[in-house]
Amino acid sequence: MKPSGPGRGTNSVNLRLYNERTLLQRLRRAGEASKADLARWAQLTNTAVGSIVQSLEESRLIETAGRRQEGQRGQPASLYRINPEGAYGIGVRLDRTSIETVLIDLGGRILAREAHDLLLPQPERALALVKKDVAHMVSALDRGQRRRLMGVGLAQPYNLGSWLRELDLKADFRIWDEVDFGAMLSQAVEQPVFKENDGNAAAIAELFFGVGREESDFLYVFIGAALGAGAVIGGESLRGSSGNAADLGLMPVPPSRLASAPVLDRRWDILLSRASLNSLARHLRHHGAAVRNHTDLEASVKSGNGAVREWLDDCADALVPSLRAALAVLDLPAVVIDCDIDNGLIDDLTTRIDSGLRQIAPEARQTPRLLRGSFRADAGAIGAASLPMFFNFSPRADVLRGRSHPTSLETANV
Amino acid sequence: MKPSGPGRGTNSVNLRLYNERTLLQRLRRAGEASKADLARWAQLTNTAVGSIVQSLEESRLIETAGRRQEGQRGQPASLYRINPEGAYGIGVRLDRTSIETVLIDLGGRILAREAHDLLLPQPERALALVKKDVAHMVSALDRGQRRRLMGVGLAQPYNLGSWLRELDLKADFRIWDEVDFGAMLSQAVEQPVFKENDGNAAAIAELFFGVGREESDFLYVFIGAALGAGAVIGGESLRGSSGNAADLGLMPVPPSRLASAPVLDRRWDILLSRASLNSLARHLRHHGAAVRNHTDLEASVKSGNGAVREWLDDCADALVPSLRAALAVLDLPAVVIDCDIDNGLIDDLTTRIDSGLRQIAPEARQTPRLLRGSFRADAGAIGAASLPMFFNFSPRADVLRGRSHPTSLETANV
Repeated sequence: MKPSGPGRGTNSVNLRLYNERTLLQRLRRAGEASKADLARWAQLTNTAVGSIVQSLEESRLIETAGRRQEGQRGQPASLYRINPEGAYGIGVRLDRTSIETVLIDLGGRILAREAHDLLLPQPERALALVKKDVAHMVSALDRGQRRRLMGVGLAQPYNLGSWLRELDLKADFRIWDEVDFGAMLSQAVEQPVFKENDGNAAAIAELFFGVGREESDFLYVFIGAALGAGAVIGGESLRGSSGNAADLGLMPVPPSRLASAPVLDRRWDILLSRASLNSLARHLRHHGAAVRNHTDLEASVKSGNGAVREWLDDCADALVPSLRAALAVLDLPAVVIDCDIDNGLIDDLTTRIDSGLRQIAPEARQTPRLLRGSFRADAGAIGAASLPMFFNFSPRADVLRGRSHPTSLETANV
Repeated sequence: MKPSGPGRGTNSVNLRLYNERTLLQRLRRAGEASKADLARWAQLTNTAVGSIVQSLEESRLIETAGRRQEGQRGQPASLYRINPEGAYGIGVRLDRTSIETVLIDLGGRILAREAHDLLLPQPERALALVKKDVAHMVSALDRGQRRRLMGVGLAQPYNLGSWLRELDLKADFRIWDEVDFGAMLSQAVEQPVFKENDGNAAAIAELFFGVGREESDFLYVFIGAALGAGAVIGGESLRGSSGNAADLGLMPVPPSRLASAPVLDRRWDILLSRASLNSLARHLRHHGAAVRNHTDLEASVKSGNGAVREWLDDCADALVPSLRAALAVLDLPAVVIDCDIDNGLIDDLTTRIDSGLRQIAPEARQTPRLLRGSFRADAGAIGAASLPMFFNFSPRADVLRGRSHPTSLETANV
């Protein structure tokens, strides 16, 4: 699983692929551009850009978007833009209490969705469910569109069998730590499957379809049932040796001071015990609220329950030193914060984090810009579906080095 | 200063450069190899490898190292190795209490050295000193060797004017936060100057000349007067948006419980207050030891002073959660630990860190391998001198993207 260190040479095929993706990225960011714009931006010759634009247009990844007069003389130049119908991706998001499958296009729109709220079943049963949902997504595409389906992204927390105590789950998911669900899925759906942990996948969605249009370097934090996170550096997603980079949920934090928190016999807890909607639900229940599901949790937040404010303070108290630590390690200028529910929660949390980060700012260090995430409850599903898009169309350095995605389970090269 | 996000295309010149460097890296790691070995390793054609080997040999970066019979028939194949005299680098290490300049060759040997223990003077005076030392290094090279001098590396803590309280320094270095000493040096010595903070430079030395021969992914920690660190990911050094990635010294930690520690009016201190030789010297002085300089400190450590053990416990107590946090963020399998003094200190600290990391290991997460650094007190100087080597000869992804070192102050492209 570990990608080998650098060492392989590269060739002109990789080079062409990289340049194609560079132009696609430029169009994603700019909206529309002429060949001359693209050549200038990418520092490529007009000939190279002309040839690439022609093949991107032939494969329908880009389309013309009218013409623009450039300079004083000559024909107006054609403008190009991404063709949202140029490619499709399916995303499967799987966690300890839900399974969701979506179909998106190259514009990032969700075209179809299937969702199940259920305690994670045995792998074989989950596979049958997902297989049916994926078939449903594929059937929403006509024959021509199916040829442009880039594969299935699978986003799941690694180590599904762990941290059940912290997440108040009385279940036995140990079997999930032993199976390779990505490989099972790949066989079942006969599509290339791209697998990432849920935090990294959501960060990749932001990079490809969200704040990544403006920002190439940010830390991404998602407050869901647990805590997901990802790091984007120079337009790339940091994977880590085992695919678990930016695993902020496991950072050591002092124990919570909330009355609802489980008694801890150790000096250090982990961040996901305190900065997660699970800890919010626990605190609300401790104060007598009936929180059976997501809708109940949303309603409690909306009602402005005082217990929500207590939790917000405790959550920020845990997040602030962890974010400072993560930023000392990664040196990133921005943090994107997103959450499974909103109703003002994201803004309230952001305000507390901003003030906390300023309070403990070390001498000579800036406080990062805090940005709102783009997808809220859809971050996981769009994250999963963005994986085939990202690994097929983004100008990653590994493309130049002729390495495919380290956990891509492709049977054929698309 | 911030490197732009990806977006530039690439061309066959970058590709050739990258492949050359890939072969140099293979030879650094393997010791010696035939063209067939290299072609197989780098997945390049024999023709491509033949052409690159010829030009590397012509530029004297590699040399033949005898012959070896390959297979049953035909001429024995020539073996190649790095020519230590193929390139030279000068390193300037500058910190708050010393300035050191060294000359090294492509084999990593120190050929000349000038060192000054002094409280950092005004920039103009420091420049005069360094200029003289660099001239001395250059004069140690003959005319042919000078043509193969790749430049000057400058390693210094950024924000030299900060954290003086934590470091018990009664001095005013604020002027140093306003000058660009790299630019001054570049003008003064008429050489390309490559600048990195001291932790990253020492990590690059490990990557290019030390444990990097075996490992492509590690966190590097150096206990000096302050705390330096760097992260190596996939054979690259992580820079960060402002060149301060892996700035472990600024990670938030609970205050020290040592009697010698300054009273803190905040809930969080920073790691360099506790995990630094400065805090050891302070603790020894608190217990009545006369610690005026490096030699006194070494003697105290050697004597097995009980205060040293107290400090070791406190240092590990601060380092352990910070390392766990850094590893949660970076997902690296190994940590390299080095220190300005030894006398058993590195082993004692490593034992404590290993046991501490195991104690707070989160469920489903491994404890990293702890490795000894290669250069001890020379880490800073070799780190500085390895910068022109690394940025000229290492197959970094930025080479493929046609980007030079973001803070390289080259006047000409070497």
